[in-house]
Amino acid sequence: MSATPVLQSLIAGRWIGSSAARDLRSAINGRLVAQTHAEEIDFGESLDFARRQALPSLLALDFQQRAAILKALATYLQERKEDLYAISAHTGATRPDSWIDIEGGFGTLFAYASMGRRELPSSNIVHEGPAQQLGKVGQFMGTHVLVPKRGVAVHINAFNFPMWGMLEKFAPSFLAGMPCIVKPATATSYVAEACVRLIEQSGLLPAGALQLVIGGSGDLLDRLEETDVVTFTGSADTAAQLRVNANLIRRSVPFNAEADSLNCAILAPDVQPGDPEFDLFVKEVMREMSAKAGQKCTAIRRAIVPAAQVDAVAAALRERLAKIRIGDPSIEGVRMGALASKAQQADVAERLAQLAQGNEIVYGERDGFAPVGEGVGDGAFFAPTLLLCRDPMRNEAVHNIEAFGPVSTLMTYGDFDEALALAAKGRGSLVGSVVTKTPALAAQAVYHAAAFHGRLLVLDRDAAGESTGHGSPLPMLKHGGPGRAGGGEELGGIRAVKHYLQRCAVQASPTMLTAITGEYVRGGKVTEDAIHPFRKHFEEIQVGDSLLTHRRTVSEADIVNFGGISGDYFYMHFDEVAAKDTQFGQRIAHGYFVLSAAAGLFVSPAPGPVLANYGLDTLRFVNPVAIGDTIQARLTCKRRIDRGNRPDQPPQGVVAWDVQVTNQRGELAASYDILTLVAKKA
Amino acid sequence: MSATPVLQSLIAGRWIGSSAARDLRSAINGRLVAQTHAEEIDFGESLDFARRQALPSLLALDFQQRAAILKALATYLQERKEDLYAISAHTGATRPDSWIDIEGGFGTLFAYASMGRRELPSSNIVHEGPAQQLGKVGQFMGTHVLVPKRGVAVHINAFNFPMWGMLEKFAPSFLAGMPCIVKPATATSYVAEACVRLIEQSGLLPAGALQLVIGGSGDLLDRLEETDVVTFTGSADTAAQLRVNANLIRRSVPFNAEADSLNCAILAPDVQPGDPEFDLFVKEVMREMSAKAGQKCTAIRRAIVPAAQVDAVAAALRERLAKIRIGDPSIEGVRMGALASKAQQADVAERLAQLAQGNEIVYGERDGFAPVGEGVGDGAFFAPTLLLCRDPMRNEAVHNIEAFGPVSTLMTYGDFDEALALAAKGRGSLVGSVVTKTPALAAQAVYHAAAFHGRLLVLDRDAAGESTGHGSPLPMLKHGGPGRAGGGEELGGIRAVKHYLQRCAVQASPTMLTAITGEYVRGGKVTEDAIHPFRKHFEEIQVGDSLLTHRRTVSEADIVNFGGISGDYFYMHFDEVAAKDTQFGQRIAHGYFVLSAAAGLFVSPAPGPVLANYGLDTLRFVNPVAIGDTIQARLTCKRRIDRGNRPDQPPQGVVAWDVQVTNQRGELAASYDILTLVAKKA
Repeated sequence: MSATPVLQSLIAGRWIGSSAARDLRSAINGRLVAQTHAEEIDFGESLDFARRQALPSLLALDFQQRAAILKALATYLQERKEDLYAISAHTGATRPDSWIDIEGGFGTLFAYASMGRRELPSSNIVHEGPAQQLGKVGQFMGTHVLVPKRGVAVHINAFNFPMWGMLEKFAPSFLAGMPCIVKPATATSYVAEACVRLIEQSGLLPAGALQLVIGGSGDLLDRLEETDVVTFTGSADTAAQLRVNANLIRRSVPFNAEADSLNCAILAPDVQPGDPEFDLFVKEVMREMSAKAGQKCTAIRRAIVPAAQVDAVAAALRERLAKIRIGDPSIEGVRMGALASKAQQADVAERLAQLAQGNEIVYGERDGFAPVGEGVGDGAFFAPTLLLCRDPMRNEAVHNIEAFGPVSTLMTYGDFDEALALAAKGRGSLVGSVVTKTPALAAQAVYHAAAFHGRLLVLDRDAAGESTGHGSPLPMLKHGGPGRAGGGEELGGIRAVKHYLQRCAVQASPTMLTAITGEYVRGGKVTEDAIHPFRKHFEEIQVGDSLLTHRRTVSEADIVNFGGISGDYFYMHFDEVAAKDTQFGQRIAHGYFVLSAAAGLFVSPAPGPVLANYGLDTLRFVNPVAIGDTIQARLTCKRRIDRGNRPDQPPQGVVAWDVQVTNQRGELAASYDILTLVAKKA
Repeated sequence: MSATPVLQSLIAGRWIGSSAARDLRSAINGRLVAQTHAEEIDFGESLDFARRQALPSLLALDFQQRAAILKALATYLQERKEDLYAISAHTGATRPDSWIDIEGGFGTLFAYASMGRRELPSSNIVHEGPAQQLGKVGQFMGTHVLVPKRGVAVHINAFNFPMWGMLEKFAPSFLAGMPCIVKPATATSYVAEACVRLIEQSGLLPAGALQLVIGGSGDLLDRLEETDVVTFTGSADTAAQLRVNANLIRRSVPFNAEADSLNCAILAPDVQPGDPEFDLFVKEVMREMSAKAGQKCTAIRRAIVPAAQVDAVAAALRERLAKIRIGDPSIEGVRMGALASKAQQADVAERLAQLAQGNEIVYGERDGFAPVGEGVGDGAFFAPTLLLCRDPMRNEAVHNIEAFGPVSTLMTYGDFDEALALAAKGRGSLVGSVVTKTPALAAQAVYHAAAFHGRLLVLDRDAAGESTGHGSPLPMLKHGGPGRAGGGEELGGIRAVKHYLQRCAVQASPTMLTAITGEYVRGGKVTEDAIHPFRKHFEEIQVGDSLLTHRRTVSEADIVNFGGISGDYFYMHFDEVAAKDTQFGQRIAHGYFVLSAAAGLFVSPAPGPVLANYGLDTLRFVNPVAIGDTIQARLTCKRRIDRGNRPDQPPQGVVAWDVQVTNQRGELAASYDILTLVAKKA
């Protein structure tokens, strides 16, 4: 048998730690898994390395390049996932539990790689436009940009999902260009260490982009600066304690907290036993009690059901809970593992005792609880326990005390308003579910409950087939709730990346704004040369490259012919009598004719670098085009995004063009962006 | 002479206060202006009134209706502005200073009324979409909504702009549906009181929508709940103190701080004396020193200039400063008034003494400072004072000590990187200016400085004519900076409203999401009846009303004719030889033909309620349409916005339609939204 490994911190590019400090034991059988290291970490050195080494390397890459690294990293971890499953088993997790942590972890990297590629520019400045005119002439405009904060992200994580919890914060902060220092919860830090070791071995990240702290965070928070960010996942008490750190307060360092909360699931009054929704509710509550042995920040702690249905729900849950085999997850058929540690076991027992006062125990330890497996007596197993509270409007404990294990409380309501009032008594939750078959009830529930929740799941027979479940945060949806849940926001698509960028309003002339944002702003200087912009390859096109087309006089014949081809005989184009009574007082050309004729003005017919016009955004018909009006178009390169090259397609980039169609008086007739794919030379 | 008025608080719909507590004196001549009241405020009653009376009234209105109230309120105040100018004069403000406070104040109401009308729905739920598919089939989707937080906004404001400071926070919070409790700084609370009195007299707001606290905030913060919000404007020290209030921390109550900061202006190295930009820089520094006697959170405290230009800048500033007439602003020609109070006068003198250590005084009290006017000896006047620091990389005081008055420090740099490093030494500022004529320098400056600033102004000869200046926050641009500036965000368009709403992710089937968001989500159930959707009036159209059109087979003749009319002979449509080599392997129809033919399929030609198709959003050509393909369109009401009726136009509403054009295999060919104006019956 090999010696117990001493876990190491990765600080300033070096693995630190050889002397053992604290024992970390298997949740299944209490055997020693690993030990933390005794060596102290110099956080000054760690921060200095992040600022001086990692930050410049990260900012030498753009959003697209960092997104590509995330994808490569996700693939690397995916290929080595079985190593991680083996280590994760010590935490008491079943394979499905570990799946959330491991595959959910690198899945989040894949998701941010893809969102970054799709939604972020190939630079380090995000233009959060459109620019707005601030004066009458249009030579002074305002807009917003988001830039890398030029600081360090410190992520302090919870014990329950050591890998997902690390990667779901790393992904958006790395994409934003921030070096990360991660401090996993000590109890399961061996999983995080294994993951960081793989990441380091991949060689995919710039040195110092991800540092790992095993053990305490020492004076790390006291050393942070204005440009840094702290995120915290864990208990509300610890969050409250860290949040008031004098240095963080003095420097206004953003502190994003995600704390466990007393999440609820509501069975709406329209659902009866026999409806598929009834079973969906029961299954969801059961799954949230047993998955990860109930150690999820998002688990259902409060199951809110109509008083008339509570006995049916209780009976159905008893039946399902009785079927769950508990024990060492390596044993075939075991569906629920252990809590993460003996300390957690004691904590959950204490909270349960408080909750049980004055409430019935519908299902619990006495119902045949006997974990299977060798040495499980030294493990941290806990019996799934369902309480019933029949007067929850007057019982404060069930809305306030959280037993962070397989423990949930059924509670009853009279009318639906009361159900929503009970939901709100959680004083801010990560997630709530509403099970209903009636859209109007769903709308009512969300409108009222959204103020108290970070996420709401509405479950019905239609959604059930694809539902990812109450307890699963997803990369594209916000994770984090108000009040007790910490008031933070994680994930939620590119929103999460923005938390690690700094937003700044910018006021300047359009020419300056074009240079600053990297996007052409109308009114700015354009470049006109002999080569048609559509005949340039991606590498040759510059933002501001522009073409003013020849003109075209619109005739009645155009309208007639366009109607014939499109089949659009709308009275404004064809009915002289009715058109007289419109605001225009006469027939006008089809808007789509103006659009089509403009394309005819700026198209370059022969094969060339422009591979496709795949879309069009923000088209506005500003002034009508009447018979006899003469139109002209200006086409200007607005934006170019280089997403790198992919093996499955010819080298190409995205170019968006600003189009302005004007009439003979210089008035804007139509305004829009067209989106094209343009070939690269190589 | 009338008795000195005792200011009153407006609490729970009653004006409270008759016994005098603290004297508030004129900044000009020290005469008594008003007194605060001695009566204690019952903040429990105030909050209770906000929650039980005001909140339901506010939520009985929708965003559009609240926007309309803001507009009416702005108009009401505008008509009574001279009353406010008279009162504002006591603060030491010149008329242009008061203009910022008074007209800037109701101007912000106008701006939010207009942004609300343009950008928010006619409901109380904002759909922050688009909804995304979370599974393969498309019956489980996710999106985000923003709803009223159902809490109270507490605004604690600074003394310098008592009216603007109140209204710029009230506007977005009222729009969001939050009752506000405003606590102005005591020194100038008589201006806020006068403004609130007018607002109350207008009768435009629901009772309790705006409560006013004269004097201290007592136990107000200790009584707040999870759904509430606190904003603070003032010193960083007070912000730090309030931010850690145990109740706020425990309940994760959002705390948005805006603190003064050591804002800079940089003269770029490309600018020489004689350039218009040189004069722009000098004027801007001078104006920021003298406007409001330098009592602006945004004032330029650090003027960063090339070492080679510092003497020229200093000389130009001396000359301009010497021309500023100081004294009682009621005297003709006076351009700079007093500080707000004797306490401020003493404070600024103390800070100046600290700043002056080791730095030259280029211009100051000794340069003929002599305020004009009766009794000004008892006023709070202060001499404009310009310091010069020649070694600012090693002088920490000039980047840390703020004299909140007409005091600024010139400092020198070698290369531009050093200038940007000096800017960053402010450790987070509200605003910075860069004066340059070179777009590349502007881009470099913004990319580096944006991480340390809430707003950046780039000033050149083009922008100068319309520039609103370094010191002026604007409703559509973010106000608030990182670090020392408090880390908050105010204004910035509808962003500011979102700070008073709660964001919640929602997962559900498309039918449920349609009911929840009030916007049609693809895949949801649609309603098809005998009446063409374009023949219904606004009141009759429901989200989900849908039309599946007849079909049309696209022929070669269509392509030929469409090319003839549009003039678009792109090879993909016309060159059989070249089209063979594209990814499609054959000629395809013009995208704009597909769009036009779809309009022909769903148009209803006779005059009807649809008044105009004014635009189109998010058009994507998903699959090509080849010769022989048969297309069909589905048109579904996606969104309807009722902005109320305006006297200058016939009653109408905005309706957006989801359009899907499919081919004979059911594949999507084109996807977009069209935007229409639809007549109301009345």
